[in-house]
Amino acid sequence: MSSLTDVPVTVLTEAQQRIQQDLLTALDAFAIPEPLKGAVYHAVMLGGKRVRPALCYATAALKPNTNMAAVRRAAVAIELIHCYSLAHDDLPCMDNDLLRRGQPTCHAAFGEDTALLAGDILQSMAFEVLGSRLYDQGAAVDAAIVLKQMQILATASSKMVCGQVLDLQAEGKQVDQAALETIHRNKTGALISAAIMMAAVAIFEGTDRAIPQLREYGQVIGLAFQVQDDILDIISDTEVLGKTAGKDEQVEKSTYPALMGLEQAQAYATDLHDQALQALDYFAEDAAALRAISQFLWQRKS
Amino acid sequence: MSSLTDVPVTVLTEAQQRIQQDLLTALDAFAIPEPLKGAVYHAVMLGGKRVRPALCYATAALKPNTNMAAVRRAAVAIELIHCYSLAHDDLPCMDNDLLRRGQPTCHAAFGEDTALLAGDILQSMAFEVLGSRLYDQGAAVDAAIVLKQMQILATASSKMVCGQVLDLQAEGKQVDQAALETIHRNKTGALISAAIMMAAVAIFEGTDRAIPQLREYGQVIGLAFQVQDDILDIISDTEVLGKTAGKDEQVEKSTYPALMGLEQAQAYATDLHDQALQALDYFAEDAAALRAISQFLWQRKS
Repeated sequence: MSSLTDVPVTVLTEAQQRIQQDLLTALDAFAIPEPLKGAVYHAVMLGGKRVRPALCYATAALKPNTNMAAVRRAAVAIELIHCYSLAHDDLPCMDNDLLRRGQPTCHAAFGEDTALLAGDILQSMAFEVLGSRLYDQGAAVDAAIVLKQMQILATASSKMVCGQVLDLQAEGKQVDQAALETIHRNKTGALISAAIMMAAVAIFEGTDRAIPQLREYGQVIGLAFQVQDDILDIISDTEVLGKTAGKDEQVEKSTYPALMGLEQAQAYATDLHDQALQALDYFAEDAAALRAISQFLWQRKS
Repeated sequence: MSSLTDVPVTVLTEAQQRIQQDLLTALDAFAIPEPLKGAVYHAVMLGGKRVRPALCYATAALKPNTNMAAVRRAAVAIELIHCYSLAHDDLPCMDNDLLRRGQPTCHAAFGEDTALLAGDILQSMAFEVLGSRLYDQGAAVDAAIVLKQMQILATASSKMVCGQVLDLQAEGKQVDQAALETIHRNKTGALISAAIMMAAVAIFEGTDRAIPQLREYGQVIGLAFQVQDDILDIISDTEVLGKTAGKDEQVEKSTYPALMGLEQAQAYATDLHDQALQALDYFAEDAAALRAISQFLWQRKS
């Protein structure tokens, strides 16, 4: 398993194509004045790995013949939240980054005021999409499911902001592993878990034994995602990464390699991947896509 | 009716006391790390007229013995959205204002990064509150009502951002009355209408004849609010206003007095108040609070 096999790449590529189409349908449904419209499309359609939508689809695959509308809306909503967070993270008063996915960041291309407003509207658009009839094709909306999805999305979005604050607070300080994991459980883990749980509540009853297994899987891969992110910031270069490499060290950010050394961090990432697979044992073959995503996150190069 | 009578003041004062308590209960229910917590409380608890919550309560008064939980959550949610918009509007890349309600703005007190994140989390907290069990006292949650409220709140929040963009685009330009009203229907009108409609969907069936009457009332007072705001920017001073007066002219903002002259703008405000009262004729005595709020908005000095 030293090189990335075809299956994980295919799972991600297929998800990227699906979400790209659904995002475009969603954005086109909004009437947004320029230059905000340009900034919103820039922030959303630039690409990215689309890991969160892929997790929505892979979770839905656990129950074949699911009515996919609520899952597709969840995938779009969570990606819009992710894109809003990137637009704001890159602002001069935050990371002050001009490069994202190999392209100018939102404020570099559209100015600070428009990038701020693009992030703001992307957040409310996420909830608009969640409560909409998009992708329904006439099927009934289950208000109880939408309410649960809203609760999950809103809570994860708030946690993401808290994680961002904890992360800024930790800059230039030595923090231990427990503190580091609290940061990342909020900053990136909450939204990754939310992607899984928003799909899960659309397809499983609240009492289903699948729910705690998926929660465990989500928590573990959320952590794995961040550990690998920290590793890539060191071993990758800006061209492959599509964003400024070596930035963590520059701002004295607490990272897993800084805390435990590079090799130990890599071993930890492998360990987390194993834990993710164990959490999926409950599902047998239907979890192939979720397994592939864990493998992708563990082996990715950017 | 040349001076503000007691009734409108009492309606507002009572609403301010109610919302202050409910906002505090809501904020205290969140675990937010410092310094973000301080910035969030600063942005929310500083005061303000609390017009939007007052509109929620006054709308709910149309149906005595209403289960108030969904209305109270709506009032808190919409005020949190309003507070987020103020924190972001005041940022250096936007209005760059240091004074709000006679106090330092959020970024003046907590720094730009924390003020940005405070606005961001206030938006997601609004949806968290809306989907929560706050103020329930054991009553069942009607998911269909919450879903409608979420749709109204999310749409209004997006419109608010669009209005902000249209407003920025219009600076230094001559715009006609139709364009000016499009700006304000989005920028301030959407959230004011949403306050009324979020309470309305909690107490009336979708087919109730009250709904279009309330929609009309909301649109008219939203406009009246802005016309009076423009007038006060000219005739009031910074001390009474609690924010920097004369700012509109300074940035060559399109305003009603600039468009039609001060006297004509004042006559227009009176005309809108009359229209608001007409829209409420349908309700007889139960609409006393909604009438009082229109009068308050028309006669306010700050």
